[in-house]
Amino acid sequence: MSAIVPVILSGGNGTRLWPRSRPEMPKPFLPLLGEETLFQQALNRCGGAAFAPPLIVTGTAHLPHVEAQAAITPGVSVIVEPEGKNTAAAVALAALRLPEDAVMLVCPSDHHIADRAAFAEAAISAAKLASEGWLVAFGIEAERPETGYGYLLRGEAVEGGYRLAAFVEKPDLATAERFLADGGYSWNGGIFALRAGTYLEELERHRPEMARAVRDAVANGRDEGSRFYPDAGAFGRIEAESIDYAVMEETDRAAMVPVSMGWSDIGDWRALQSAHLADDAGNVVSGNAELEDCRNVMVVSDGPRVSVVGLDDVVVVVDGGEVLVTTHAGAQKVGKLTGARGS
Amino acid sequence: MSAIVPVILSGGNGTRLWPRSRPEMPKPFLPLLGEETLFQQALNRCGGAAFAPPLIVTGTAHLPHVEAQAAITPGVSVIVEPEGKNTAAAVALAALRLPEDAVMLVCPSDHHIADRAAFAEAAISAAKLASEGWLVAFGIEAERPETGYGYLLRGEAVEGGYRLAAFVEKPDLATAERFLADGGYSWNGGIFALRAGTYLEELERHRPEMARAVRDAVANGRDEGSRFYPDAGAFGRIEAESIDYAVMEETDRAAMVPVSMGWSDIGDWRALQSAHLADDAGNVVSGNAELEDCRNVMVVSDGPRVSVVGLDDVVVVVDGGEVLVTTHAGAQKVGKLTGARGS
Repeated sequence: MSAIVPVILSGGNGTRLWPRSRPEMPKPFLPLLGEETLFQQALNRCGGAAFAPPLIVTGTAHLPHVEAQAAITPGVSVIVEPEGKNTAAAVALAALRLPEDAVMLVCPSDHHIADRAAFAEAAISAAKLASEGWLVAFGIEAERPETGYGYLLRGEAVEGGYRLAAFVEKPDLATAERFLADGGYSWNGGIFALRAGTYLEELERHRPEMARAVRDAVANGRDEGSRFYPDAGAFGRIEAESIDYAVMEETDRAAMVPVSMGWSDIGDWRALQSAHLADDAGNVVSGNAELEDCRNVMVVSDGPRVSVVGLDDVVVVVDGGEVLVTTHAGAQKVGKLTGARGS
Repeated sequence: MSAIVPVILSGGNGTRLWPRSRPEMPKPFLPLLGEETLFQQALNRCGGAAFAPPLIVTGTAHLPHVEAQAAITPGVSVIVEPEGKNTAAAVALAALRLPEDAVMLVCPSDHHIADRAAFAEAAISAAKLASEGWLVAFGIEAERPETGYGYLLRGEAVEGGYRLAAFVEKPDLATAERFLADGGYSWNGGIFALRAGTYLEELERHRPEMARAVRDAVANGRDEGSRFYPDAGAFGRIEAESIDYAVMEETDRAAMVPVSMGWSDIGDWRALQSAHLADDAGNVVSGNAELEDCRNVMVVSDGPRVSVVGLDDVVVVVDGGEVLVTTHAGAQKVGKLTGARGS
């Protein structure tokens, strides 16, 4: 098998991690866990011998961050989308820039994976299945009854993995608990192994208009050093859809490989807290803080001292002159705050 | 009856209102409610025809604030204590600087009283009793089963008030609820009407050493414009004791007048929140803030925007580069924080 081509998607802004994540310095490019940024982590975990140099799909807003943070990664090339059209189109752009038989490993650039060896092992298994014509999703072992993620239902076993029986939208708590007890459900982390030609065939079959528009955008695009600019007019005709909806749920060649790798989408402050090691009281502190009678509290400060008394299950963030205080339940609403919306 | 002499005690630092209240600008001198500071409110509520110019007892640390904020109050004089020796000695200093038959109204300078007319009316009643030789405490109507205040137990009626049957220390909640149901208990706000000569007689009787030391301190003190400096050596010999312990609990001439006047000692952030008018959700905001799904939350900010999501019964204060987040229950512990202790 030839080397796996990492296709790193860099899109979202991570507004639920405001005020740390901001339009001018969004989530993937922040060192939220450890010293590397999430984007650098995504590049580096695809740095082994099994992988070819990465292909990054991003927009003009993220481009300066992408190029600065990928500067020391050899052989990087970048596709610069004229506008965001969700993942089905982004993956199609990458597929059209690669040989038909290239196996892509599609990865978001704003997730955290603690166990890189487990990731690489699963990538190799998934790539093998993909090279045989399967469209392969990573099925991430569900560690708790999480209501913030979509789920994958495992079907019958195939050589090296399983058929993918169903995609399930974010469940309510009771359903998530049933999924966990059932054992056949895993989290959908948006990581896919796909043979370029196979993906394009399936896109052609299920979303022919999108396939045509992406082909036109690539045919009429232009190279500029390591950057490729698809044609804006053709790309603008695309209806934005996720790869899950447009292809994975439609095809009868969907498979999954199970993996346990300490994964988190770092979707909000509560998720970021969970990904950190806490002290005995469950508290996580980054920066200047004093906690009294607190449990499961996270404090992140870029300077000012933060003193917290008597609180449970709360996140306090001080960043760039903004102060955020939220419950764990409230963390999902942070993106709707005036500040997070850029006002 | 001659005019009542307001004796305004300016001592404590209000560390539980940190980070707003700080050693260099303590609680009495901050506009915590409305545009006047608590100290200015104390002066102004004794500004009617029934009152003589005020006599202020303070220390060197508060002196600049006292003189700046009392600058437009006519006839103010100040006793500058060499060190803090609690209220029994502070009141004795004032008594010795006044004619024997002067009636003092002893008032803390860091409380809030919403109803000034009710205060003035009670002051006049209390002063009348005091002029007849009673040592008179204000018995503030208990509005709720408060565990943060001391209580006064009402005894038999006397002309214009009641005998004071007992002082009660801060009760637990069950006891506070019994007090409220009983109806004979009121809050001790540290406000007293006392004839100067009577107070000194009683101090002489129950704390003769303190009485002697204060007499020496005044005899050997010096005037400097409107300031009077007691002798530091003599004053240093005094054992610090509250007027409650040293005199009021000892004397058989203790009385009380009941009063309902919207009083609060603004003892901590929870108390300050209670003294404000809240919106329909019970929230109080001062400064730049956005609240989502919050109830009974107070936010005070001197500049930075504060965004709060999903919290109940919490206080967030941003002041001078410090950030405090506390529950209502935790508010009483704020004074013990590293920041509040001046580190």
